Amino acid sequence: MKHIAESTVRRLSLYLRFLEEFETQGQATISSGELALSGGTTSAQVRKDLSFFGSFGKRGLGYGVRDLIGSIREILGLHRSWSVVIIGAGKIGAALAQYRGFTQRGFNVVGVYDKDPSRIGVTLDDITVRADAELERDIQRLKPQIAVLCVPGDAAQALVDRVTKAGVKAVLNFAPAQIHVPKGVTLRAVNMATELEILAFGLSHPEERAS
Amino acid sequence: MKHIAESTVRRLSLYLRFLEEFETQGQATISSGELALSGGTTSAQVRKDLSFFGSFGKRGLGYGVRDLIGSIREILGLHRSWSVVIIGAGKIGAALAQYRGFTQRGFNVVGVYDKDPSRIGVTLDDITVRADAELERDIQRLKPQIAVLCVPGDAAQALVDRVTKAGVKAVLNFAPAQIHVPKGVTLRAVNMATELEILAFGLSHPEERAS
Repeated sequence: MKHIAESTVRRLSLYLRFLEEFETQGQATISSGELALSGGTTSAQVRKDLSFFGSFGKRGLGYGVRDLIGSIREILGLHRSWSVVIIGAGKIGAALAQYRGFTQRGFNVVGVYDKDPSRIGVTLDDITVRADAELERDIQRLKPQIAVLCVPGDAAQALVDRVTKAGVKAVLNFAPAQIHVPKGVTLRAVNMATELEILAFGLSHPEERAS
Repeated sequence: MKHIAESTVRRLSLYLRFLEEFETQGQATISSGELALSGGTTSAQVRKDLSFFGSFGKRGLGYGVRDLIGSIREILGLHRSWSVVIIGAGKIGAALAQYRGFTQRGFNVVGVYDKDPSRIGVTLDDITVRADAELERDIQRLKPQIAVLCVPGDAAQALVDRVTKAGVKAVLNFAPAQIHVPKGVTLRAVNMATELEILAFGLSHPEERAS
């Protein structure tokens, strides 16, 4: 497989969102043009994105919605389930622990951790917050692939070091800190400060419009 | 000013984060090389990013940390404050309404809205959730520039249409839906499903590693 840019993966994820909507509405086939329209891109881009992974659809007939959903889910690694630990049970961590979108998409939250004694033992939906000292033992036992980090910025790197050393292969970082992961570990960050700053830039430079 | 790519704005935001850390540690000057190292980029990139906005620093002497912080804050539009309304007071909306990072960065939450009667009137920190029917009147009165959207996917577009029509110029979308904004409005989206799918892709294609 050729190198796949993150922008391609991001668009595939977007196509999947629309295809699922089309399927709900009972639509059986879709053209690259229709898919492009939903995604704000061109049909040439849609065909190019899908061509990375083989040959889909029939010329003039478009793509079968259900088939394409299956193919994109497989490409994205969604045909199986993944286990997730959430580290930090503050406001954002607790909200995520109760976020139904995880399970709906095959991401099972198998543990929530905090170091604050007042949070340990608290039940969020059907999961009980555990002491972060248990992380290594739990990771060995439960083998989560993904850690979601919702701790203060200055605690983030040490925790990432611990969980990746224990075997976690993907990190979604909500902590307001730039963190580093070992080679072979996938890292994504959601940084509220950065998002707000990009908005402020757009507001301050209306002629510019960061895009 | 030349067209500024979002990736540049994103790096400026990152540089700002490091510069603030350096300032806290009492460092007075910094070289483009040091700044590049923190940001995982090159010193040539740092100089290029900053050159868009004028001339900073002295050859061989580096940048004054405090001056550069001031300049980047001004570039990003952080030298002034912005008003924010949060729409949707569910778990994520409520967590954001109580997120201290907003105020710390000059983003003042002036209203939180929901349509669920069981949430209206609830107090989050020092702000009371109001009925979303009040949105237009409140936007006219409070003139928020930014709306943060934390509603179910199928409610998102109609609300964006309402708030942008009422005068909001920037939208941060947490709703799991692709939304469209009128020309002249800045849009950012934080999509948990997409972030998780990019992680799953990375886990499924360890040789690929979306980057």
